[in-house]
Amino acid sequence: MTLADTEKKIKSMEIRGAGRIARTAANALKEHSETIKSKDLKVFVEEMNAAAEILLKTRPTAVSLPNAINIVMKGVREAKTYEDAWHAVHESADKFVKESDLAVKKIAEIGAARIKDGDVVLTHCNSEAALACIIEAHRQGKKFEVFATEVRPRNQGHITIKTLSDAGIKTNFIVDSAARFFMKKVSLVIVGSDAVTVNGAVVNKIGTSQIALCAHESRTPFIVAAETYKFAPKTLTGELIEIEERDTSEVLDEKMAKELSNVNIRNPAFDFTPSDYVDLIITEKGAIPPEMAYVIIRDYLGWNIEDFDR
Amino acid sequence: MTLADTEKKIKSMEIRGAGRIARTAANALKEHSETIKSKDLKVFVEEMNAAAEILLKTRPTAVSLPNAINIVMKGVREAKTYEDAWHAVHESADKFVKESDLAVKKIAEIGAARIKDGDVVLTHCNSEAALACIIEAHRQGKKFEVFATEVRPRNQGHITIKTLSDAGIKTNFIVDSAARFFMKKVSLVIVGSDAVTVNGAVVNKIGTSQIALCAHESRTPFIVAAETYKFAPKTLTGELIEIEERDTSEVLDEKMAKELSNVNIRNPAFDFTPSDYVDLIITEKGAIPPEMAYVIIRDYLGWNIEDFDR
Amino acid sequence: MTLADTEKKIKSMEIRGAGRIARTAANALKEHSETIKSKDLKVFVEEMNAAAEILLKTRPTAVSLPNAINIVMKGVREAKTYEDAWHAVHESADKFVKESDLAVKKIAEIGAARIKDGDVVLTHCNSEAALACIIEAHRQGKKFEVFATEVRPRNQGHITIKTLSDAGIKTNFIVDSAARFFMKKVSLVIVGSDAVTVNGAVVNKIGTSQIALCAHESRTPFIVAAETYKFAPKTLTGELIEIEERDTSEVLDEKMAKELSNVNIRNPAFDFTPSDYVDLIITEKGAIPPEMAYVIIRDYLGWNIEDFDR
Amino acid sequence: MTLADTEKKIKSMEIRGAGRIARTAANALKEHSETIKSKDLKVFVEEMNAAAEILLKTRPTAVSLPNAINIVMKGVREAKTYEDAWHAVHESADKFVKESDLAVKKIAEIGAARIKDGDVVLTHCNSEAALACIIEAHRQGKKFEVFATEVRPRNQGHITIKTLSDAGIKTNFIVDSAARFFMKKVSLVIVGSDAVTVNGAVVNKIGTSQIALCAHESRTPFIVAAETYKFAPKTLTGELIEIEERDTSEVLDEKMAKELSNVNIRNPAFDFTPSDYVDLIITEKGAIPPEMAYVIIRDYLGWNIEDFDR
Amino acid sequence: MTLADTEKKIKSMEIRGAGRIARTAANALKEHSETIKSKDLKVFVEEMNAAAEILLKTRPTAVSLPNAINIVMKGVREAKTYEDAWHAVHESADKFVKESDLAVKKIAEIGAARIKDGDVVLTHCNSEAALACIIEAHRQGKKFEVFATEVRPRNQGHITIKTLSDAGIKTNFIVDSAARFFMKKVSLVIVGSDAVTVNGAVVNKIGTSQIALCAHESRTPFIVAAETYKFAPKTLTGELIEIEERDTSEVLDEKMAKELSNVNIRNPAFDFTPSDYVDLIITEKGAIPPEMAYVIIRDYLGWNIEDFDR
Amino acid sequence: MTLADTEKKIKSMEIRGAGRIARTAANALKEHSETIKSKDLKVFVEEMNAAAEILLKTRPTAVSLPNAINIVMKGVREAKTYEDAWHAVHESADKFVKESDLAVKKIAEIGAARIKDGDVVLTHCNSEAALACIIEAHRQGKKFEVFATEVRPRNQGHITIKTLSDAGIKTNFIVDSAARFFMKKVSLVIVGSDAVTVNGAVVNKIGTSQIALCAHESRTPFIVAAETYKFAPKTLTGELIEIEERDTSEVLDEKMAKELSNVNIRNPAFDFTPSDYVDLIITEKGAIPPEMAYVIIRDYLGWNIEDFDR
Repeated sequence: MTLADTEKKIKSMEIRGAGRIARTAANALKEHSETIKSKDLKVFVEEMNAAAEILLKTRPTAVSLPNAINIVMKGVREAKTYEDAWHAVHESADKFVKESDLAVKKIAEIGAARIKDGDVVLTHCNSEAALACIIEAHRQGKKFEVFATEVRPRNQGHITIKTLSDAGIKTNFIVDSAARFFMKKVSLVIVGSDAVTVNGAVVNKIGTSQIALCAHESRTPFIVAAETYKFAPKTLTGELIEIEERDTSEVLDEKMAKELSNVNIRNPAFDFTPSDYVDLIITEKGAIPPEMAYVIIRDYLGWNIEDFDR
Repeated sequence: MTLADTEKKIKSMEIRGAGRIARTAANALKEHSETIKSKDLKVFVEEMNAAAEILLKTRPTAVSLPNAINIVMKGVREAKTYEDAWHAVHESADKFVKESDLAVKKIAEIGAARIKDGDVVLTHCNSEAALACIIEAHRQGKKFEVFATEVRPRNQGHITIKTLSDAGIKTNFIVDSAARFFMKKVSLVIVGSDAVTVNGAVVNKIGTSQIALCAHESRTPFIVAAETYKFAPKTLTGELIEIEERDTSEVLDEKMAKELSNVNIRNPAFDFTPSDYVDLIITEKGAIPPEMAYVIIRDYLGWNIEDFDR
Repeated sequence: MTLADTEKKIKSMEIRGAGRIARTAANALKEHSETIKSKDLKVFVEEMNAAAEILLKTRPTAVSLPNAINIVMKGVREAKTYEDAWHAVHESADKFVKESDLAVKKIAEIGAARIKDGDVVLTHCNSEAALACIIEAHRQGKKFEVFATEVRPRNQGHITIKTLSDAGIKTNFIVDSAARFFMKKVSLVIVGSDAVTVNGAVVNKIGTSQIALCAHESRTPFIVAAETYKFAPKTLTGELIEIEERDTSEVLDEKMAKELSNVNIRNPAFDFTPSDYVDLIITEKGAIPPEMAYVIIRDYLGWNIEDFDR
Repeated sequence: MTLADTEKKIKSMEIRGAGRIARTAANALKEHSETIKSKDLKVFVEEMNAAAEILLKTRPTAVSLPNAINIVMKGVREAKTYEDAWHAVHESADKFVKESDLAVKKIAEIGAARIKDGDVVLTHCNSEAALACIIEAHRQGKKFEVFATEVRPRNQGHITIKTLSDAGIKTNFIVDSAARFFMKKVSLVIVGSDAVTVNGAVVNKIGTSQIALCAHESRTPFIVAAETYKFAPKTLTGELIEIEERDTSEVLDEKMAKELSNVNIRNPAFDFTPSDYVDLIITEKGAIPPEMAYVIIRDYLGWNIEDFDR
Repeated sequence: MTLADTEKKIKSMEIRGAGRIARTAANALKEHSETIKSKDLKVFVEEMNAAAEILLKTRPTAVSLPNAINIVMKGVREAKTYEDAWHAVHESADKFVKESDLAVKKIAEIGAARIKDGDVVLTHCNSEAALACIIEAHRQGKKFEVFATEVRPRNQGHITIKTLSDAGIKTNFIVDSAARFFMKKVSLVIVGSDAVTVNGAVVNKIGTSQIALCAHESRTPFIVAAETYKFAPKTLTGELIEIEERDTSEVLDEKMAKELSNVNIRNPAFDFTPSDYVDLIITEKGAIPPEMAYVIIRDYLGWNIEDFDR
Repeated sequence: MTLADTEKKIKSMEIRGAGRIARTAANALKEHSETIKSKDLKVFVEEMNAAAEILLKTRPTAVSLPNAINIVMKGVREAKTYEDAWHAVHESADKFVKESDLAVKKIAEIGAARIKDGDVVLTHCNSEAALACIIEAHRQGKKFEVFATEVRPRNQGHITIKTLSDAGIKTNFIVDSAARFFMKKVSLVIVGSDAVTVNGAVVNKIGTSQIALCAHESRTPFIVAAETYKFAPKTLTGELIEIEERDTSEVLDEKMAKELSNVNIRNPAFDFTPSDYVDLIITEKGAIPPEMAYVIIRDYLGWNIEDFDR
C-alpha cells in the first residue's frame, strides 16, 4: 500500500481501530522506504521524515500512531549510514507489528479469564482487543451472551455484530440509547480504548463514558482492553488529549443540514471516561487498575518528564 | 380521518407524541360516532366500544390514550338515550382536545420561566410540551441555545431541530451518545414524558434515563414537561408499565439482520427515569416535585385504589 | 388467651410481626372485657385502661400496637354507659382485626403485581405482608426465586423459609452478611415494616437498612409492604422512634457473656432505612412513594399537629 | 417605628431574619396607617399601597415579606369603607404577628424533640426558628453541644454565639470553611430558611448548601426550621427565586477594592439547598419531608395555579 | 503436627486466619520432610510435592497458602542433592515463619498509629493482623473502644471478643446486621484480608463488603491490615478469585434443612470489597493505597506477566 | 535574616506558603552557619542542630520544613571536618533553593497546559504553585477568568487577588461560603497543598476539602499543584498528619471572646481532601493521579519503611 493510500484510508476511516492504524503506519513507513530512489542518508532521512509527518496528521487523537511512528523513525534519525537507516526502518517496523499482534493475543487471554459462564457482556464500538477477549472466552467453551451497540454516527456496531455472529456468539443488538435499559442485567462491560491518560482516564468512542456511568450505577464491572502503546505519554506534561470533531455529514445528511439555518452539528468522535468508572485495564503486561497508567508510561514506555524538554 | 386511518397512523408512528395521540384518538371517536348509521343506543354503544378497543391497542404504553378514550367513552357508557350518547361523545371529545391544547400552553409558560439568559438547554426526542417551553422562552426574548439529540432508531431529533431552527432558536445537533460529552456545560435538561408513575418515575423515549443520569452526575437540573393526563393511575395498584418493543427493522435493515444468524435485535421504545434524577415535573396544574405524582393521580385525576376493583 | 398470656407472648416474641401483635392486642382487649365482673362503667373503664397500659408496654417500638389499642379504647373512653363501652370494645376490635386481615390481602395483590417472571426476590425477617406479596405472585403462576436471610439474633429467617418452602417457592437461604454478595443478581427486595415515619423512613428489623443500602448500590428496587396502621403519627411532632434494645442473651450465651468482663452486648432490634433507599411503599391504600407518608398520616389516619396538644 | 425607619433597617440588615422582617413589615403597615391624615378610603388605600410597595422592595428574596404584606393588605383592598380598611390593617397585622410568634414556639417544641443527649448540633447563620429549637432542647435539660459558624460576610455568627452562650449552651465557634472538618462528629444540622420552593429546595444564607452537602456526605441528618409563610407560592408557576447580590463592601473594604482593577466582587446573600440533602423541614404544622412543600403551599397557604393568572 | 493433622485442621477451620494457615503449612512441610525415610533426592522431592499438593487443596481461596508452599518448595525443586533439598525446606520454612510473625508486628505498629484517643473502632471476623493493630494501640495507652461483630455462620466474633476482653479493651459485641446502626459513631474500621487483587479489591470474610459500604456511606475510614503474602499474583493474569462455598450445615441444622425441600442453602465464605471503599492497606512494607496492589505484586512479590506462561 | 527573625516570621505567618517556608528555612540555616564563631566541628554541629530544632518547631504541619532541614543538615551530620560541614550547609541549601524555584516553574508549565480558553478557574488560599499555573496560562495568552476565595480567618485571598489583578487576570472575589453557589459554572479548580499523604489525601488550607466536595458534585476537575517535597514520608508508617489549631484570636476578637463564657473557638488551619475528590496532582516530575503518592515517596524522595526504624 502506498503512503498516499495509507493516508487516505486512515483519514477516511476505511482503516480504523488504533492497533490497525499503528501497524498500518509502521508498514507504510517500511514500504515507503523502498520507494526512495536515493541512497544518500540525508535525502533518505528527509523523505522518511516527510512521510512520517504526513502519517502523523491523519488522525490527531490516535495515540498509537505517533508511538508507532516514533518507534520506526528512532533508528532512522540515529543512523550513521544509509544502510543503517534502511535496516532500522525494516527491523523496527517488523518488530512493532509482531509485538502489536501478540499484544492483542495476550490481552485476549487475560480478558477471557474475566468472563464466566452465564455472563451478559456489553461492548461498545468495534475494538479489536475487546472483541478478542470475548471471542477467546467463547473459544474456551464459556457460555455467555453479548450486547453490542449501534455506535452512531458511523455504525461500527454493524461490524461488531457481524464478527460476533460469525464467531457463533449469541449477540443482542441495541441502539446506543438503550444501554441503561439493559444495564441492570449486564454482568460485565468490555470496551477498547484509543488512549489512556496518565491518571487512568480512558479516551474511547463517543458514548463510552455514559455507558461506564450506567455500569457504575448498577455495580456492573467496567473493564478496558488496551495495548500499552495506547497510553499517552504527553499527558504527563499536563497536555489535554484533543477530541477530534469529525465531519458533520456523518451525523446529518448535508442537504438537510443546509436547510436548517440555525442548526450547528457537533460530532466529537471520542469522550473521556474517568478512572472512577473503570475497574480494570487489561494490557499485554497484565491486568492493572487505571491509576497505574503512570507506571505503565514510566516503566514500560520509558518516558520521563525530562524527555519532553527536548 | 377514519378510525382505520387513525389506527394506522398511531401504529406507524406517523402520529406520535402522547398529546397528539390522545387528541387524535378523542377526535377519531367523535368522527367515528358520525359514521354509525343506527340510532339504536345499544348498537351505538357497541360500535363505539369496539372502536375504543381498536384504538386502545394501537400503543400499549401511551397512558394518555386510555385516559382520553375513558374521558370520551364515560358519557357514552352512562347515557340513557342514543342522543345523550351522541352528544356525550361530541362534548367530551371537544372538551378534552381543548383542555389538552391549553395544557401545553400553560406548561409552556411555566417551563419558560425556568429558562434564563445564557442557558444551554438540552432536550431529547420530540416532545410537544418540552419544545413549547423552549419556544415560549425564546418568544419572551430570552437568549439561550439548545442541544438536541438524534433519537435513534427513528430519528425524531430531525423533527425537533427543524422545529427549533424554524423558530429561530440556535440549536446544536448531536448523536445520542454525545450527551455526557456536552453535559457539563448544559445548564438545564427539559424532556417530555409518555407516562409518570405513582412514585414519580418518568417513562419517556429510550435514552432519557441515561441523559438524566448524566445530568445528575454534573448537577444539571433535569425537568419534565408532562400534562396531568400522562400520570398513570394503574401504577397505584402496583401495575408495572410495560415497555413496548417496536419493530426490529427500525434498528437494523432486514436484509442485514437476516444474514446475522446469532444476532437478536432488541428495540425497547421507552425507559424509566427514577424520581431521584428528576428535579421538577411541570404540569398544567403547576410545577411539582416528582414524588407528588400520587397526589396528582388522587386529587386531579380522581383515582382511588377502590376504583380498580370494578 | 388471657391478658397475661398475651403480654407474655408479645414480650417473648412468641407472637411477632406488627400485624399479628396489633390483632392479638385488639382481641386481648376484647377478651379481657369479658373477664371484668363489675357492670359499673367507671370500674370497667379503669380495668380496661389498666389492661391497655399493660399491653402498650410490651413492645415500645411497635407502632401498630398503640394504634390498635387506641382504636379499641376510643369507644370505651367516650362511652356513656357500661353497655356502650362493652359493645364499643367488641365492635371496634372485630372491625380492626377484619380490616387488618384485608389490608394484608390487598397489599399482597399490589405487591404481587411488582413481581415478574424471572425475578430474584430478596426478603429479610419474617414479614406477613411481604411474604403475602411473594406467595400471591407464586399463586398467580409467576416463576421466580427468593433469597431469605437468617435474621440474627432470633433467626426469624427459619420461619420465613419454612413458609416459602411449604408454599412451593424455590428459596435460597443465606446468612445476613451475604446480602451484598448476592445483591447484583437480585432484581427486587421486598421487606415489611414495623413503623414508617412522617418523612418516609422505614423502621424494620435490624439489618434492613444495610440491605437497602446494598440494593441502592446495585440499582435493585427496594420496596416495603406496610399497612397504613404502621405509619407513626407522633413523628409529625418531631418525636424520634426509640429503638428497643432486646435481651443480650439473644446475642450471646449468658455464661460466655459473664466471662468476658470487658464486653458489652448491644442488641438493637430495629434500624432506620432512609427514604432515599426506598422506591415504593405498598399499603392497602395503594403503592406510594415513601415521601407520601405525611399524606397517609394526615389523610388516612386523620392526625393533625393539633391532636398532640391534648 | 416610621415606615422610613423600617425600610432603612430592613435594607441595612439591622433587622434581619425572615420572621422578624415579616412581623416588622406587618407592624410598620399598621403604624403607617395611623400616620395617614385623610379619612377618605381611596386616599387611604393609595397611601397604604404606596407603603406596601416601598416595603416590598427592601429585600427581594425574603418570601415572608410579600406574604406578610399580602395578608395585611388583603383587607385594605377589599374594604368598602375607610373604617373597614383601617380595622383590617390593624386586625390582620396583629393576628399575623401573634401567629408568627406562636409558629416559632411550636417549631421549637418539634425541633427540640429531634435533639438527644450527647448530640453535637451544627447551625449556620442566625435563624430565630433554628435557635429556638436548640434553646428549647437545652431548657428541657438535654445535654449537647453546638457548633456555630462565623457566616461571612456579615458575621451573623457573632450574634448566634452570643445568644447561645447567654442561654448557657456549650458552643464551638468556627469559620465557615471548617464545617467539613468537624462534620463527621456532628450528629445533627439545624438551620433556618428564607424560602422553600415548591419542590422542597431550601433558600438560606450563602454557605448553607455546602454545609448540607457535607452533612449528606457523612450521614449527618440535616433539618430545616421554617414557618409555613416561608414557602414560596410563585415557584408553583416555575418562577425562579432570584438570589440577591448584596453590597460588595460587605466582602472587601472599598479602598482595597478600588485598587484592584481586574477584580470583581460577587456577594450573593443566599444559596439553594436541593431537597436531596434535606431530611426534614420543621414547620408549625408539623415535621414534613421537603417534597411536601407543594402540599403546604396548596393546602395551608391556599394557593393554586389559577391564582397567578390574575 | 503430622501432615494429615494439618490438612484436617485447616479444612475444619480449627486453624483459621490466613497467616496462621500459611505458617502452619510451612511448618507442616518442614516436619513432613523429617518423616521421609528415603535419602534419595527423587523420592524426597516426589513425597514433598505430594505433601504440597495435599496442603494446596485444603483451602482454595487462601492466597497465603500457595505463597507459603511455593516459598518452601522452591528450594526443593531446584536442589541438586538430597541434603540441599532437606536444608532448603528447613531454612525457607523457618525464614517464612519468622518473617510472617515479624510482618504482623510491623503491621501492628503501623496500624496502631492510625488509632487515636476517643476512637470507636469496628472490626469484623477474627484477623490476627487487624487485632494486632488494636492491641498495640491499647498497649501504647490509647483510650478507645471497639465494636466486634458475631461473624455468622461460624461465629469467629466469639474468639475476637475473648481476645479483646482478655487484653483489657472495652468491646461492644453486635450481630452482623447491626453494623450500619452503629456506623455513624464508628470512627475507624479495621479488618484483615484473605487476599488482595491486582486492582486493590479485598477478599475477606463474608460481610466485609457491606460493612465497607456502610463505612463509606458515613465517611468512616476503612482500612485493611494485610501481609504482602496476601496479595494475589494470578489476578495479574485476569484470574478471578474463586469464592469458596462452605458446608451448608454451618448455616442450617442438617435435619431442618432436609425438611425444607424447596430451600437451597448458599454459604459463600468470603466477599469482595472494591478498592473504592478501602482507604488504606497496611502491609509490613508500609501503609499504601489499595491501587498500589499492582506495585506490591510486581516489586515486592516479584511477579511479572511472563512468569505465568511457564 | 537572623534565625530568630526567621523563626518569628514563620510562626507569625508573615512568611507563609510551604515553598517559601522551606526555602527560608534552608537559607536561615546557611546564614546561621556564618554566625557560628567556633571552627570546632562538634560545636558547629551542635549549634546547627539546635538551630534546626528551633526551625522544626515553627510549623508542625509544614511537611516541606523538615524535608528542607533534613536536606541541609544531612551533610552537616555526615561531615568529618568543620570545613566539610560548613560547605555542606552552603551547597545543599543553595541547591535546595534553586531546585525548589525550578519546581514551581515546571509545575506552572504543566498546570498551564490544563487551562483552556473560556475556562472558569477557582482557587482557594494563596498557593505559589497554583497561582504560577494560572499566571503562566495567562502569559501564554489564554483567555479565562478566576474565582478566588476570601480564606478566613487570615484572609490570604486578599493577597491572591492582588497578585492576580496585578498580573492582569480577570478575577472574581467571593466569601468561602459561596464556592458551591458558583461551582456549577467553574470548569477547573486548582489549589496548592501543604502535604500529600501516602494514599493521596491532600492536606491544604481549611476549606479546601469542602470545595473539592463541591467540585466533585458538579463534575468539575479538581487539581492540586504540589512540589514533590510536599509528600509526607512518615505517612508510610501510618502516622496521621496532625492538624495545627492556630490562635483563636484569628477567628474572634479577644475581647468579644472573653465575654462569651460558654464559647470555645476552634481554629484548625488545614483539612484533608480525600484522593476520591482529587483528579490530578501536578508535581515537577509530571502530572500524576493522587494514588501515585506512594511511588513519589518511594522512588523520588527515596524513603522506605526501614528508614523509620532508625
